[in-house]
Amino acid sequence: MTMIFGTKESVTGKPTEQRLVRIAELEIDADQLSAYTAALKEEISTSIRVEPGVLTLCAVAVKDHPTQIRIFETYADRAAYESHLQTPHFKKYKTETANMVKSLELLETDPILLGTK
Amino acid sequence: MTMIFGTKESVTGKPTEQRLVRIAELEIDADQLSAYTAALKEEISTSIRVEPGVLTLCAVAVKDHPTQIRIFETYADRAAYESHLQTPHFKKYKTETANMVKSLELLETDPILLGTK
Repeated sequence: MTMIFGTKESVTGKPTEQRLVRIAELEIDADQLSAYTAALKEEISTSIRVEPGVLTLCAVAVKDHPTQIRIFETYADRAAYESHLQTPHFKKYKTETANMVKSLELLETDPILLGTK
Repeated sequence: MTMIFGTKESVTGKPTEQRLVRIAELEIDADQLSAYTAALKEEISTSIRVEPGVLTLCAVAVKDHPTQIRIFETYADRAAYESHLQTPHFKKYKTETANMVKSLELLETDPILLGTK
């Protein structure tokens, strides 16, 4: 069990109060949905594998609205997030998907309790 | 690294295609926010600790809108979710917070890729 705000140190040893959580809400062009999903999966897989500070990238589609995507993103701290934005795989994803994304809203958050197994 | 849709079996040994992910969007009465947050933290802590099928309950507040709460919920499967609804700790939370919650929207989802460390 990882109760992130119940311990002084996170799994990466960073102080937990520095954890950065964002929710991305996207609307994808229906005609390009499968291409978008492929690009997103590649971006998530690579980020989780190679970036120590990228802790979760959980992507879901709203049921019965497959073009409405939500991504629950957790970074060790703001530096990890800023670093993520500069990676080749993230830049590739942004370039490849630029004309597939009809709208993007980024919700910044204040974590309350991040309970995970 | 746990790449939930990249492996045939999840951390609990359940087939990953049965994974149930929900996003709860709540608006809380501002005058009761601290009481609500305390009840929510207790409910999350207990659920993660005692329910094998409750995999994540990640609660955040939208930045600069502390009464707007989002909870990213992952269950091993639908049975785990149905079981969760019947637990004493969940029922206690629902009863205690019934008059604190001004609105609640539950988004059912289809997972795309749940990437976690």
